[in-house]
Amino acid sequence: MALETIFARRSIRKYQDRPVEKEKLEQLLRAAMAAPSATNRKPWEFVVVDDPEVMAEIRSVMLLGKYNAPAAIVVCGNTSRLKNPISEFWVQDCSAASENILLAAVELGLGTVWLGVHPIQNLKKRIAKVLGLPGQIVPLNVIYVGYPAEEKPARTQYDPRRVHWNRF
Amino acid sequence: MALETIFARRSIRKYQDRPVEKEKLEQLLRAAMAAPSATNRKPWEFVVVDDPEVMAEIRSVMLLGKYNAPAAIVVCGNTSRLKNPISEFWVQDCSAASENILLAAVELGLGTVWLGVHPIQNLKKRIAKVLGLPGQIVPLNVIYVGYPAEEKPARTQYDPRRVHWNRF
Repeated sequence: MALETIFARRSIRKYQDRPVEKEKLEQLLRAAMAAPSATNRKPWEFVVVDDPEVMAEIRSVMLLGKYNAPAAIVVCGNTSRLKNPISEFWVQDCSAASENILLAAVELGLGTVWLGVHPIQNLKKRIAKVLGLPGQIVPLNVIYVGYPAEEKPARTQYDPRRVHWNRF
Repeated sequence: MALETIFARRSIRKYQDRPVEKEKLEQLLRAAMAAPSATNRKPWEFVVVDDPEVMAEIRSVMLLGKYNAPAAIVVCGNTSRLKNPISEFWVQDCSAASENILLAAVELGLGTVWLGVHPIQNLKKRIAKVLGLPGQIVPLNVIYVGYPAEEKPARTQYDPRRVHWNRF
């Protein structure tokens, strides 16, 4: 059930030494592209990395993401698909797609961790260089993907103080 | 299963004339607050609207959202919880929480539609005024919630041209 999956999703930072099947990576992208987007513009591109050499390059760039995942999905905005006034919505659209990837991964027995890239300028440049991104393709994040080698209990961080009824 | 839920989520714009139970609205918020956030900062606040008068005020403000939903969740960023360099991550964190709301709603038999507010300045101001938001609370979106009065088939908008392996 979706609620259990939502609670079971945890950031995984230790991975088994086992590749992720291409069909499973494609399933993650089917989930990603089922996300809503502003005026259905779908301003996204996905770079799937499973080549160990490219993974090593990504790890060398991600100062706070040296984890041993065998694969990654880099969710990017395609700014050529945007126009004012909705141009900034690409971050929201790509974030919804990213969350779908994390949740679909749980169902497939995979672990993930979402590592922020945008809006950190020097990180964006380095990831763009590793992946050969043209100027209009902006990396939002790096999502590491692999079979988990750690277990974390399901949880919500629900806090009733963050909930306001009808007026703040 | 989560993948089916992800595909079943569609933007619903016609609602039954039937209120949403408070327990279900709280379940949506449990799902929202299970989302990941940058450095686990949880920069979110949620205004749940189920008072018909406040809903009418929201509808009057949402020029592109006149739908007859009986309830709404306004997902907001709490900028007082942020500090550089991660301040801009609140949009991503709150978007992941929003997607969790949409997916949990499917499981609960509810329909939703995500209506963008941030970064449209005049819309942000009007929603803030309706809800009495203090200056540090920024509305990201309005998510209408209700029992659906229309059916849409499950789908993904998967497009293999948006997928790039190892290099763009």
